[in-house]
This record gives sequence, C-alpha cells and structure tokens, in this order.
Amino acid sequence: MHNPQVPETLEGWSVLHQMFTMRWSAFKSLPSVRRAEIAREASDLMATMAGNSDGPSALVNLLGHKGDLMFIHFRRDFGALSAVELQLAQTGLHDFLAPTTSYVSIVELGLYDMTGKIHQELSAQGLELGSEPYEKAFDERMDAQRQRVMGRLYTEVPGHRHVCFYPMNKHRGEIKNWYTVPFEKRAGMMREHGRIGRAYSGRVVQIISGSIGFDDWEWGVDLFAEEALVFKKLIYEMRFDEASAEYAEFGPFYVGLQMSSHDLLRYLEGKGSA
Amino acid sequence: MHNPQVPETLEGWSVLHQMFTMRWSAFKSLPSVRRAEIAREASDLMATMAGNSDGPSALVNLLGHKGDLMFIHFRRDFGALSAVELQLAQTGLHDFLAPTTSYVSIVELGLYDMTGKIHQELSAQGLELGSEPYEKAFDERMDAQRQRVMGRLYTEVPGHRHVCFYPMNKHRGEIKNWYTVPFEKRAGMMREHGRIGRAYSGRVVQIISGSIGFDDWEWGVDLFAEEALVFKKLIYEMRFDEASAEYAEFGPFYVGLQMSSHDLLRYLEGKGSA
Amino acid sequence: MHNPQVPETLEGWSVLHQMFTMRWSAFKSLPSVRRAEIAREASDLMATMAGNSDGPSALVNLLGHKGDLMFIHFRRDFGALSAVELQLAQTGLHDFLAPTTSYVSIVELGLYDMTGKIHQELSAQGLELGSEPYEKAFDERMDAQRQRVMGRLYTEVPGHRHVCFYPMNKHRGEIKNWYTVPFEKRAGMMREHGRIGRAYSGRVVQIISGSIGFDDWEWGVDLFAEEALVFKKLIYEMRFDEASAEYAEFGPFYVGLQMSSHDLLRYLEGKGSA
Amino acid sequence: MHNPQVPETLEGWSVLHQMFTMRWSAFKSLPSVRRAEIAREASDLMATMAGNSDGPSALVNLLGHKGDLMFIHFRRDFGALSAVELQLAQTGLHDFLAPTTSYVSIVELGLYDMTGKIHQELSAQGLELGSEPYEKAFDERMDAQRQRVMGRLYTEVPGHRHVCFYPMNKHRGEIKNWYTVPFEKRAGMMREHGRIGRAYSGRVVQIISGSIGFDDWEWGVDLFAEEALVFKKLIYEMRFDEASAEYAEFGPFYVGLQMSSHDLLRYLEGKGSA
Amino acid sequence: MHNPQVPETLEGWSVLHQMFTMRWSAFKSLPSVRRAEIAREASDLMATMAGNSDGPSALVNLLGHKGDLMFIHFRRDFGALSAVELQLAQTGLHDFLAPTTSYVSIVELGLYDMTGKIHQELSAQGLELGSEPYEKAFDERMDAQRQRVMGRLYTEVPGHRHVCFYPMNKHRGEIKNWYTVPFEKRAGMMREHGRIGRAYSGRVVQIISGSIGFDDWEWGVDLFAEEALVFKKLIYEMRFDEASAEYAEFGPFYVGLQMSSHDLLRYLEGKGSA
Repeated sequence: MHNPQVPETLEGWSVLHQMFTMRWSAFKSLPSVRRAEIAREASDLMATMAGNSDGPSALVNLLGHKGDLMFIHFRRDFGALSAVELQLAQTGLHDFLAPTTSYVSIVELGLYDMTGKIHQELSAQGLELGSEPYEKAFDERMDAQRQRVMGRLYTEVPGHRHVCFYPMNKHRGEIKNWYTVPFEKRAGMMREHGRIGRAYSGRVVQIISGSIGFDDWEWGVDLFAEEALVFKKLIYEMRFDEASAEYAEFGPFYVGLQMSSHDLLRYLEGKGSA
Repeated sequence: MHNPQVPETLEGWSVLHQMFTMRWSAFKSLPSVRRAEIAREASDLMATMAGNSDGPSALVNLLGHKGDLMFIHFRRDFGALSAVELQLAQTGLHDFLAPTTSYVSIVELGLYDMTGKIHQELSAQGLELGSEPYEKAFDERMDAQRQRVMGRLYTEVPGHRHVCFYPMNKHRGEIKNWYTVPFEKRAGMMREHGRIGRAYSGRVVQIISGSIGFDDWEWGVDLFAEEALVFKKLIYEMRFDEASAEYAEFGPFYVGLQMSSHDLLRYLEGKGSA
Repeated sequence: MHNPQVPETLEGWSVLHQMFTMRWSAFKSLPSVRRAEIAREASDLMATMAGNSDGPSALVNLLGHKGDLMFIHFRRDFGALSAVELQLAQTGLHDFLAPTTSYVSIVELGLYDMTGKIHQELSAQGLELGSEPYEKAFDERMDAQRQRVMGRLYTEVPGHRHVCFYPMNKHRGEIKNWYTVPFEKRAGMMREHGRIGRAYSGRVVQIISGSIGFDDWEWGVDLFAEEALVFKKLIYEMRFDEASAEYAEFGPFYVGLQMSSHDLLRYLEGKGSA
Repeated sequence: MHNPQVPETLEGWSVLHQMFTMRWSAFKSLPSVRRAEIAREASDLMATMAGNSDGPSALVNLLGHKGDLMFIHFRRDFGALSAVELQLAQTGLHDFLAPTTSYVSIVELGLYDMTGKIHQELSAQGLELGSEPYEKAFDERMDAQRQRVMGRLYTEVPGHRHVCFYPMNKHRGEIKNWYTVPFEKRAGMMREHGRIGRAYSGRVVQIISGSIGFDDWEWGVDLFAEEALVFKKLIYEMRFDEASAEYAEFGPFYVGLQMSSHDLLRYLEGKGSA
Repeated sequence: MHNPQVPETLEGWSVLHQMFTMRWSAFKSLPSVRRAEIAREASDLMATMAGNSDGPSALVNLLGHKGDLMFIHFRRDFGALSAVELQLAQTGLHDFLAPTTSYVSIVELGLYDMTGKIHQELSAQGLELGSEPYEKAFDERMDAQRQRVMGRLYTEVPGHRHVCFYPMNKHRGEIKNWYTVPFEKRAGMMREHGRIGRAYSGRVVQIISGSIGFDDWEWGVDLFAEEALVFKKLIYEMRFDEASAEYAEFGPFYVGLQMSSHDLLRYLEGKGSA
C-alpha cells in the first residue's frame, strides 16, 4: 500500500564506496619492476571499470588520513558489487591497500512533491486510499516517472575534478523528530532545501543514494564540482535552511580529486596527477 | 511472578553472529595447494554446519569493510555456541580471518498482545495476580503457546538470497522512554508496527533475537529477502510508525548475500558466487 | 562525617576483570610439545589461583569477538591485583593473549535502607548529626554490620555454569539526575529494584563491585546462573522498574561459561569443555 | 544570491594538517648512516616547503600520544595539497611515520558585521534583494574587501614558538541551535567574541579555516603564541562568552612547539631542539 | 582586563602524563642480559627524573588494560616536556612500550573566592573595573597570592602508595550550563565542593591541572592516597554535591601504585614490587 506519510522513492544503481589508505612503505620496498607490474594491472582494471556500461566505477584521490584512494562502484545489484569487491581483492595493488571504511547504498530519487500530488489527485478522483484501483493508478504514475528519470537512476559518473562524499541522517530527537513531522511540512522543507540546491546547478552535481537497511546512516551524498570551494559554499548555505538546521545529522566527510586510470598509474609512481 | 508491565517472551535457538574480514594478502601468498586444502576444509565444515539438524549455521558474504564473511550459528545453548566458535578457530581458514565484531542473542518471540490478553482473562476469572492459581494458569497458557510456535523458536535458516542484520534498542531518554510507557500504549504501538511488517510478508522473513544480558543492544534483527531493495522499503516505511520513529535506536547494519558451502569454495578461489 | 544524602557502603575484595582474545593462529603454529607445555603451565596456575584462599580467581570462556578468556581476580588489595597481573604476563600463554579490555573495582554492599535507618535512630536518640557521639555510634553500627556480611564482602566464586559481566552508571542527565533525587526517593527505588532481584534468588547470584575512582563506570555487576536465559529474564524485567528505566546506563555486556583449570587445558587443545 | 541569513566569507589558502607519530623503535634500529640520510632528506624538504612562496608548510613537534609531528601545509588548491601529501609519502622518513589524524580546510574570514552592513546599505539605496543590480553591487564590495585582506587570506606562517590546533562546530541542538538564531543576534555574539580575542592581540595570532564539506567539523583553528599559557587563558575566558558558552563544540586539541628544518634534523638524532 | 565572570587562576608546572602498555611478549623474547641492560637504563633514568629539582617525574604501575606504566612529568615549560618525551623515546625500554594515551596540562589553582573578594574590595575602594589603577591593584594582589602558594604551584610529587588520575569537564548542556551560571552561584558551588574535599585532607592529596587549549578535557585531576578505597569514598560523596552532580563530566579513570626506580627494576624482571 502507498502510505501517504512516506515519500515515494525510485531506485537505480547499487553503490559501494570503498576507502583505502595506501601502504606506501611496503609498496616502495618492492622491486621497481614489480611496482610497475602492479600499477599497470590496477590501471588497466580501473580503465575497464570506468568504461563499464553496465555500471561504471570512479576513483578518487582523497586528502588526509581517512584514505588515499576511494572507489565508487555503481552496479546493477548487490551481487555485482560483491563481485567487484572480490575482483579488486585479487589484484596485486590490493595487498598494499588498508581499508579504512566503506559505504553501501542504492541510488535514490526521493519524490516528496510527486507523492503528495498523486495522493491528492487520486483522492480527488474519488478513489479510496489502499483500494486496488488506487494502488494500480499510483503504480502506473510511478512507472511513468521511473521512465522519465531513468538517466538519473542509472547515471553516468560526472566528470568534475573534485568529489565530496558524506553520509547523513534525518534527526530523530526527543524534541525535534523528522519522522513525526506531518508530511506536508516535511515536503515544504524539502522544497526549500531543493531551491537552494538549484541555485548551485551547473556548478555542482549531486547523487543521492539511500542506505536504510544497508549501512549505518540513512543516505549517502556524492557531490561533484570543478571548484572544491563550491562544496563549502553550498553546504554552509544549506545549513541555515530548516531541513538542515533542525534535522540534518552529518557523518564524516571525504573529499578529493577524481583520478583517471592514467592518473592512478602516475600516482603509484609517486607522481602527482599533474 | 508474571509482571503485567513486562511482555512475556518465548525463546528458542541460542545465536552467535560472527563477522570476519578476509586477510586476502596473506591468503594469496600461500601456495595454491595449501589454499585449495584450506578452502576444501572450510567448505566441508560449512556444509556440515548448514545441515546440522540440532542447530544450523548460515554463511553470508557481506558487502564493504565491516566484514567479508558473516557466520550465523543457531544452536541449542551457549555451550554449543562456544563449541562451534572453538571449532572454527581450529580450521586453516580461521588463520586468515580477522574478527571485526560479533553478536550474542537468543531467538525470541515477544508476546505483547497475548500477555495483555492472558492477564485480562485470568483477572476476569477472579484469579488474583501473583497467586499460585494465577501463576499456574498463566504458565499453562504460555506452554501451550510455546508448542504452537516451536517451529519459529527453533527455525530453519530462510533460503533467501539477501541477508540484513542489525541490533537495536528501545529508547530510554529523558523525555521519551519506552520503559515508562504504560503497557497498553506499548502494545498498541507494537500492533501497528507489526501491521506494517505483515504487509511485506512473502517478500521478507524476519528472525528477532533478544540480547539483553548477552550483548550491547537489546535485540538483534535478521532479515532475509530475495530482493535487497525490500530491506530499504520496509525499514524506511517502519521508521514513520510511532514505535520506530520515537523509540527505535539502530546499531550498525550488515548486508550481504547468502553463500552455500560451494559458493565459499569458489569465493576462496577468488571467484564470484555467480 | 556520615552524610545523610550518601548511602553507606561496605567493601571487600579488590577485583580485576581481564578480557583477552586468544591469538589462535600464532598459537597453532607452535610445535605441539610447546603448546602442551604452555597449556599445562596455564592450567596449573589457574588451579592454584582458583583455590587461593586469600583471594580466588575465576576463568570464563566468553562468547564472541569481545574476548575468549575473561579472568576475574578477587584479591586483598590493589597491590595483590598488580602482582597477579604481572604473574600472568610472565606465563607462556600470555604471549598468545591479546587484551581487549579490563575492569578495576572493589566488592561493595550498598546500604540504602540501613543508612536511612541509622540516621533516623540516632536523630531520634537526640544525637546531633556530625557530632562526635553521633559519628561514633554510627561507626559502631557499621562495624557490626560489616561483621555480619563479611562472607559476602569476601565471597567465594559462585560455581554456576554461566557468567555475565557488565558495568553501569546511574544517569546524571539534564532532566533526570539520580544524584539530585532526594535520599528517601532513591532508597525507595532501590528497595523496589531489590524486590525484583529477590524473586530470582536461587536462580542467579550477583556480585556488585564499586568502581568510582577506579574505572570508567560507577559499578560492575557479575551475575552467575546455571541457565543463561535467566540473565535476560532478570535484566529485562528490571528494565521496567523506575531505578533502571529512568536512571540505569549500561556498558558493554560480557557473557560466557565458567572454565575449570581442566577445561582450560582442553580448550587450549582446541576441544570444547564437554 | 547573497542570502541575508548567511554570513559572507572570503577564502584563501587550502590547508592540510597531517599528524604523525614517530615509529622510534623501527627508526632507531636502522644503521646510523641511513638515519642521517633520512634526516637530511626530510630536513631539506622541510626547508624547501617552509620557504615555498606559493604556499608554505610549517612543522610542529606535538606533545603526547596524539602525534609527534604535525605538518601544516598551506597551498593554492586541493591539487597542490594532494601533491605535497604524495611527495611526503615518497620520503624515507615517511616509512617511520604512522598517521594518527589529519584535517582538510580552507583559510576563511567570516564577515558577520560586513554582511549585515552591505545588505543594510543596499536596501537603503532602494535596491531589491536578489535583483541583478543588488547582486552586482554586493559582489563589488566583496571584491574590494578581498583585496584589502589578501594578506590574511594568503598569510605567512606566524613564527611564534607554540602552536595550538583544534576543530570546532557551532551547536545545533534541540533547544540551542546556532543555525536558527536570527542573523543580528548571531552577529552580536560574534562581535562580543571578537572583542575578547582582540584583548589578546599581540600575544596570540589566530588562523581560522573553514571545513564544511571537507572534514568532520565546521572550522579549524590554529593559534600561535610565544607563551603556551596564553592559549589556556584566552580559550578559558572565551568559554564564558555567549557564542562559546552556549554554541561552541570543541574537537580534540593538539599542542606543540614549532620546528625549523634544523630542529627536525636534531630531533631525528634524538636531541631536543635546544 | 580582569573579567569578573572568570575565576582567576595561578599556574605552575607544565605536566605530561604518558600511559603505556608493556609489550611483554617481545620483551621476554630478549636475551636476559639485554633485558637486564634495558631495565638498568630505565631504572637509572627514572631515578634521575624522580630527583630532578627543576621538575620531577613520577612512575605509576597502572591496573588493567589501559596501561601498565604511567609517567607523570612535571617540568618548567612545554619545551622541557618535549625534551623528556624525546629522551624517553631514545631508551631501550621505549621499544617495548606501546603508548595508549597521554595528557597535557599545567598545574592550576582556581581562585573563585579570591577573585570575587578582590573585585569586591577594589569596587568598594571606588576603583573602576578595567581602569589602569584597578588592573594594577588586581595584579599586585595576584602576585602576592602567587608567592604564598608557590609551593603548591611547583609541588613535589606526593609519596603516597596509590595514584588516581582522571580528566574532567564542566557541563555545557542545553539546560544545565556551568559557563552561563552567575559567578556568585558558581563560587558557592565550588565552596561546597571544597568543603567535602577538606574533610578528606590528610588521607588524600590532590593536584589539579588545567588543560583548556592543551588537551581534550578542561582539567586533569591527580589524587594520591595510602588507601585506594579513599578515592572511591571521596569521589562518591562529591558526586552528590551540586557542582559534581549537575555539572561534572568525567573522562576515563586511571588507577595504580607508585613505583620507585627500584620497583621498576624488579617489575621488568617480572617480579612484584613487594
């Protein structure tokens, strides 16, 4: 049954973020021939994964101790995520990577406005909530919407230079509790939140993925931008809107620069990505 | 004495969840003959444990850094859990597993509705709470119920492809405190909670186990489903019901794919379970 | 001065809990003769410590990743605890134990009821709080009580099969604060709490130790029972009484099975304790 | 659009703090010739980085277990931070450094007073908030201000003996929430906060950097002073002003002494920096 | 300016607590001659540091897994603390010590009563707060007080058998906030707090050090007593006074026995300090 308190969502790629630190000391102690071999194997795999039409992977060179390399794998399902995790573990490079954290989620479009609108229209048509015709009509509209946004559900990896990832929750406190706020009020806050986001369109691309039931926060957010400063400006401004100020809880932030398979090769030679 | 503030519970299998990461680097450095030997031993043991009629074990290939392999052991008592833990520690594979966490619990059916009903009926019969006849009559009804649900207390492992495990608490805050809510109000919230759950029946199977006195959260929840997305849909919808919105505290989430003993063999060869 | 807001306490054994995981991989790689030697040494020491009349030690085989072996040392004073810790560190087994945590405390009997009663009686006798005769009379009564409960202050280790240990605090929140509740109200809550506990007498034995000033929680609780399920039943029922529902904060729980020195020998051979 | 609820900020250097502990045991086991070689390489690199006109690095000898060496890298952008991190990883010294934590941020001047003033003036001129002329006039004033404070945005490293670093947040609680306080009230609190800071001018220099979107706290604070005691006096006095008392959340504190490249050489020889 | 909301403080020794666990397994594997050599070197250094008139060090044998050895270094300034940390790192023993935590602070006398009194007297003399004569008169009184308490600011190490260390904060909550309580009310609570402390004088010696700006808590507390039980009695009684009950937040507790340089020698031979 479509529950009018619960915003409908549409889902796409299954996603696995993997963060690793590079064990430079051990890697540097290898003979240079072996290093080159490992680098070539890793670079080739990355090139293949980046171009994988049935779910691409991206690679990010993170700043700071939380990790040196972050893989973002988009795949059809959890089976394919398990397979890529296992495949990576078989590479020579993996022996020199220490996992620091990871994140499991599924690309998600939350549809507050549409949810409210469909419920309203079907009620206006005299259909009864939860009845078969109601549910059927609702599903048809969702299917149509799914077709319209297929490109966002199964997105390509934005090509921007900088990447920012963080997980977040909606606050369930003893006084302020997102999940007990009436639907219309939540929808209004999300609308305002979206308005700020749209003012940054063109400068930043965001991919939201849902992780309830999969990982320790409710959502993961990936931001892509040419200028790193945009992340700070956007998130700072949003912090003053009601949805964020009162209800957003933020997990750790990961920031870095996208790496091509060629950048990875140079990185493993100890050289910057120019 | 049967305390009318406390919901009665029935208990079954003792349960131990063990989460491990695979030390691939060390494992891959073994001669392939030794690797095959270890894989065969582990796979054989898993086959035996999966078919153990006096308490089966399941194996899950987790996604992400929280673990690669999760064993779920159902056994008669804590002695048998200790034995299986020790047995696993003697295998060759164990030398290449790094424990990340674990969970100790006992399969539990919470009986809010029945608790209220029995107390009401016995009082209606003029029996005095805490008197010997009252206690005797109460115990008899509980025994009868235990017989009826024996199959759920000592359940088989559901065969679904995906598994989700997480521990949880009922909130004891300074303003919202589950344990000071009157029994009838708690029972009502649990009834509503159950109603949402039942809407997903057929698509997800849940096993609740109690861990008060055994581990750091009050309950453990195992969900089994063919489609991973069902976990997200179910838990997200529940988050809006009063029992969850106001009173549920969630621990870390573990998600992955069930593995047969044959899948384990292929996994240790570095191949997906396809 | 005996402060009428502060419950009097009587103290006995100094206690050190030591939790270790067994480094099986390293231990199994030893020649079997060396393993047997180490096992014999550890088992002999355990037998000696278990029988030590001036402060016994107990050994528990914990379930899960929090530890494999938990030693509970009861001793005369902190010097003796330091000595046993050092002695254990010199054994061969210690090289294969990785400490996970520990707990330092002193066996404590809290005397809410008696504290109130003595203050009341001495006041009724016209003695002035804090005066020399008052203090002297108070001390005499406490000394008499100490003699009566000497066996509980310097207890033997209960022989039950299962052991549960956890630390706890009384909540000092911004709204609910145990330490600002008037003495009589606290005493009333502790009385009710004790009443539930006594309903389990015969099935569970508890040893409370105080750790304010010694470790990170205010008290440690050791429970001993033949049936592990009793821990869950008891602690769950207590969670609904006011003292626990509103004021108890629980630390991590450790649960396992008592081991004799002979069980330890078999355990180190990789065999269950039958 | 310039949002009148959001204080304008100006940004300068990208900043990376890297904290490491020295693995003395491994380092001391090297032949002294190799130690000298490593020390010389590290010292030379430090000299170069300290004098780098396009973004200098500083080095701090931290007290305590949180780290022995803290590098503070100021650079033009995140690409340059990534490059210096990689460059350091290629040195011999890096093999003997264990990273403990790090911090990613961008030097930031927060302009509460100016933000309020510009909005007020432009409104007084009859310009409409968000209109093109309004935005253009606003941007021009910000550009002018940026020119005036360029030296603070792209600051040199203050030369004082002691350094203190800590990250911080503004509190977003259920009752007290910085982000829902009206702009004018926030500006007033920041003004008072600044007044206390200015009373310490001459004795302490502070560099604020913003880390929203980059790291786990909202700001990083670096303080430089000849006398370490000044850090305590300043931060303690500030703790009583409203902005800090009610709204400041502090992360871990790192304190130590600045090291020249020559000090590093002596340090690696096991000698104090005199 | 002397701020009448802020209690004046006087400062003495800079302090570094260093906690280490002993890596017994590695140490025991050394040839006994080498062990003796290392023990002798460490013991000699400890003897020198204990007798250092310009800032002594103390050594404590901690109980439990949080550490085996805790050094408390009192020195003139942070430079001297850095030097002793480096000196210790050069010893043979250091290779067998794993740091668990540490604490950086400066010995501090908080002067609530005197602060209030001086402000009151100077106002009564008609001096204006913040004026030059006011500040000058204030400083003179503080200087006089500093001379009177010089022995406590630059204290010797109390010789008692047992030592307890813990860090603490004053609570800054959303409802209860120490830093927004009026000065006179805070002074009153501290007076009451001190009264309880004085009832234990003779049985316990305390050294308070301030760590705002230096470490993660606001104060460190070292207690010294012949009887360990006194720590529990004192801290438990204090927990009921308003300053502690409502406003004290306690960090981890470290407890153990003081060791002479001779005790250290015996300890490293695996023998108790008799």
